[in-house]
Parts: sequence; C-alpha cells; structure tokens
Amino acid sequence: MGLLVVGSVAYDSVETSADKVVEVLGGSATFFSMASSLFAPTYVVAVIGEDFREGELDRLRRRGVDVRGIERVPGATFRWGGRYSPYFTTRDTLFTELNVFSDFQPKIPVEQTGAELVFLANIHPALQLDVLNQMKGPRFVALDTMGFWITGEREKLLTVLKRIDALFLNDEEAFALSECGNLVTAARRIRAMGPRILVVKRGEFGSVLFYDGHALAMPAVMLEHVVDPTGAGDTFAGGFMGYLASQPVIDVRALQGAMVTGTVAASFCVEGFSIDALERADLSALAQRHQQLRTSTASLDMDLTHARDRATSRG
Amino acid sequence: MGLLVVGSVAYDSVETSADKVVEVLGGSATFFSMASSLFAPTYVVAVIGEDFREGELDRLRRRGVDVRGIERVPGATFRWGGRYSPYFTTRDTLFTELNVFSDFQPKIPVEQTGAELVFLANIHPALQLDVLNQMKGPRFVALDTMGFWITGEREKLLTVLKRIDALFLNDEEAFALSECGNLVTAARRIRAMGPRILVVKRGEFGSVLFYDGHALAMPAVMLEHVVDPTGAGDTFAGGFMGYLASQPVIDVRALQGAMVTGTVAASFCVEGFSIDALERADLSALAQRHQQLRTSTASLDMDLTHARDRATSRG
Repeated sequence: MGLLVVGSVAYDSVETSADKVVEVLGGSATFFSMASSLFAPTYVVAVIGEDFREGELDRLRRRGVDVRGIERVPGATFRWGGRYSPYFTTRDTLFTELNVFSDFQPKIPVEQTGAELVFLANIHPALQLDVLNQMKGPRFVALDTMGFWITGEREKLLTVLKRIDALFLNDEEAFALSECGNLVTAARRIRAMGPRILVVKRGEFGSVLFYDGHALAMPAVMLEHVVDPTGAGDTFAGGFMGYLASQPVIDVRALQGAMVTGTVAASFCVEGFSIDALERADLSALAQRHQQLRTSTASLDMDLTHARDRATSRG
Repeated sequence: MGLLVVGSVAYDSVETSADKVVEVLGGSATFFSMASSLFAPTYVVAVIGEDFREGELDRLRRRGVDVRGIERVPGATFRWGGRYSPYFTTRDTLFTELNVFSDFQPKIPVEQTGAELVFLANIHPALQLDVLNQMKGPRFVALDTMGFWITGEREKLLTVLKRIDALFLNDEEAFALSECGNLVTAARRIRAMGPRILVVKRGEFGSVLFYDGHALAMPAVMLEHVVDPTGAGDTFAGGFMGYLASQPVIDVRALQGAMVTGTVAASFCVEGFSIDALERADLSALAQRHQQLRTSTASLDMDLTHARDRATSRG
C-alpha cells in the first residue's frame, strides 16, 4: 500500500560560492519522494499556489510519484532562499515566505489513508498529529522536525513523538531535544520519549542509527563536486523510508539497508541544484554507488588477537 | 624488525567539565606506543627530563615497549596543559613548556635503525628528516604534523613529505596544507606532494583513508562516556601502524585493517585520562570492540535494483 509523505513543495533560491539559482523546485516532500519513489509507490500530500508551474509536477509524475494529494490553492507557493559559505560549512537563510504553506491543513485523500508507511516531514507538530489521526494504522511512521518546533512547540512535539516509530534529526536538534551534548546519551533520552528508532543526520560525516541500545554509524559517500546540499536530509529520509517500504519485515537488517540507501540517495541530491542530479539518478546508479560505499565501509575478517605473534615471528 | 616511533613523552595537565588531572603521563610517542605495542615490537625515541618518574617508563615496559631510545637529560620534562569545553567540542591550550623537548635531537640507537616501519610524530620537520636520514631504508614511513609547521615550516615539511608513505592529519590541517576546503580535492593535492596514503582523523566522526584515488571512510566507535580525548590521534596512529607492522604485505586489505585497528584503539584512549584506559585494554578487549564496530559498519547484500518491484507486488 506504499508510502505517504506530508511536507512542503516549494520554490528555493540558492546561492553558493560558485553559482546561484532562483525559484527552482524544492521542498521536503519533493526531495523525499524523488528518492522514495525509486523503491516504493509514494503519495505526496502538500500544498502549492496558483503560480506553481505544472511542469514541475510532471517531474514527480515521471518518477512514478502519486501527486493527487498536492492541493493547488489561491496565493503564492512557499518560497525559501539561502546562501552557503564556501565549501558549505555554514548556511544562512535569506528569506522564508510561507505563503500558501502558512494555512496548510493536510487532507489525506481517503484512498491513501491506508498507506503502510508514513513520513511526516518538518511541519508544525499539531499538523503532524492531525495527519496521524487521519491514517488507518500504518505499520511504520517516521518524523522530521527542527529547532523551531523543539523549543517553540515542545509539548505538542512530545505528544506526537509518542506515536511514531522513527525520528530524523541532526546533531544539534538531538542535543536540543534531549538537553544533552553526548549523542549516545541524547539517543537514549529521545528513544525514551517514544520513537524506538533515532536517525541522526550528520551531513558530510554521515549518519547514525540508534535502536535497541545499539548504534550503527554510516559514513557519507566522499564527494569532490558538491553543488548544493539543500534537500539532502529529506532525500536521505526518502531513500531510507522507500527502502523500508520495499521490505517484508522492518528488522535490523532492513534498517541497515535503509541507512545505506538513504546515504546513497543523498549523495546524488547534493551533486546538483534542486532535484536536478537526483532526477538523473536511477536505481542502477544508486546500486553502483552502493557498491562503492560498501567497499569503503568494508568489514574485515581480522585476527587481532594474534597480530603481535605474527609481527614478532616475522622480526 | 618492528616499528620505531619518534615523538614526545610528556606530562599533561588536563581540565574537563567533569574533572581535572595534573602532570599525568602523556606525549605523542607514549600514546602511540601503548597502542602499537599490542601488535608489533615498538621502539620509542624521545627525551625526558631529570624530573621524569621512572615508574611511568615501567608502564611502557610492561606493555613490551622498548624504551632504550628514551634519553634522560638535565632539565624538566615537556609539559602541556589544556582545557576542554563541555562535551569536548573545543579545546584551549593553557600552556606549553617545551623544556628539554626544545633541544631534542633524536638519536636512533644503531640497533633500531633497521626498523621496518617508522612513525614520525608531530615534531619539527627538520628533525623528522634527520630521523629518516638515520634509518636504513624502512619499508613504510608515516608522519604526523600540525598547523604550526604547515604554515611556519612549509618548505621543510614539503621536503620530508616527499620521503614518506603515509600522512596523518585532521580536516583543518589537510585544508591548510592543500589550500582547499573539499577533502577529496585536498587529498588529491596532498598525495601529489609525496605520500601515497593520507589518513584524515575527524575525531568523533571517525576517519578517512585516501589511497590510489579511493576513499575509505570509517566511523568512530560511538561512546557515551568520554573522559579525555587527549592522545586519541596518536593512539589511532599507533593502532594503525602497529597493525600494518603485523602484516606481511601492506596492501589495501592491510590498510583497511589498520583503519579498523586505529579506530578501536583510539576508542579506548578517550575513555580515561592519560593512558589509563588504554593501558587496561588488551588485545581481547580490542578484538571485542572490533566486532562491535564491524556490526555497526556492516555492508549488506542488497538488491536495490528490484526493490520497487517487490514493494509494488506486496501492495
């Protein structure tokens, strides 16, 4: 029954040290679905304005994304503008124009309320809760949020956290939510708030999955030509959730596969502005990069215990 | 014929948000050899002052470290003091008293000049070059340095880089040396300066090995109880080089094993002040943590290409 994502479809304007784009396709639900739809039927619930170019929706449709839940309403589409420092070490938000997004009241099409997996992208926790109340018992729910809600709508966020399976955060958000600066401790505290799974996104340093008291750290793909990191986190979540949706059982093995898939998907996202590079990446491109990542995280049969004996006997 | 390390043996005073220690055993050669000696016969060349407590050398001797190359001279031992911010996000150096280390002229004992592997810890590049000139053609030489030499003694450093196999740096040092802020580009430029292998140490984010145009990223062990990160980089290098010394051939597989071993060794270092936790870790403790890391970096047999077919047929 596929995967439902509720989030934003937006126009982004992005400046980097090398280039600049204006009003290109962006938004959490856009990046997420462009990745997830490679692995599982994906339904997007979002809102766009009168000014939204129909051709942009075709890009999602061509990927097989179901866009019937994207509502077009009077007004302008959500716009975001940001500027990255050289080498993407910091990002400044230049403007955020919520426009039609400020009155977003997600309505899940009735035929999509049975989706097996749900991803609640970064929106007001009250809306995230409202979406869950419209669904017919999905088997796996994941949520993304940000510092603004963690500090400003903490109680509502804590309420929705009790009803989800997995939470996606970056280090800073995990520290803010747990009020603690060690990631392992933070993960323990956050898992005690409800989600049994915490995924910490660390940008170029990769990601960490916390579950059942274990931590699975995954390095990112090392890239020489980064164009624009915007959307990488949502793309990671899309690869992660899409892979889970393709699995008969969500167990440790499926979660490991989801981490790899999210990592690989995000590596394509950052190689272009908007969804440009992600759109060009098909399943075989992802599979190829997975092989590369696999080599780079290769585990080994090593007999550490007898290493010194060998060294001494060789001496 | 084992592994020779030339570096410092020092007294460290360290303040953290939780605790404080004064004049405990430290120094690059100390941390390095406490790790490397688990895997290969290790010779330390360093200098200490009259005030150095003989019992500290016994800690190295008990590990099997050959300390005959540690010269005791009139004057005081090298002292370093530092303070870490909560959760070790930043470190301030409070004082550096070079003392006898300021006149350090490494003299390699003649019976150790045939060591197969050499680690030149962070000292003046001219001294690193001088050590190499005393050696009888080691099969593998690695070097550590810091920003102070990268900017202040660049020409001498470039000279010695031409004669080594592997360079250990952190991100910031790699960027400074290469004059570039992308790590993959930086690695390419640095490898063109001489060393065919670059190991970038990224603290809690793990490390990356660059060789032959490949990048092998390795996450760090996730730790909840970090006591003091001082010496972690040298401990990493010790585990790395010790493992290589135990291998008949230094190939890709050996380098991957070295990355794992360095990662595991460093994870013990940070769990105590000075060498306290590292000293308690024996080969079986390292092997056990290696299994843990192995699980956390598990690569998978995943058929990404047919994931969507499976998801759809299940729908």
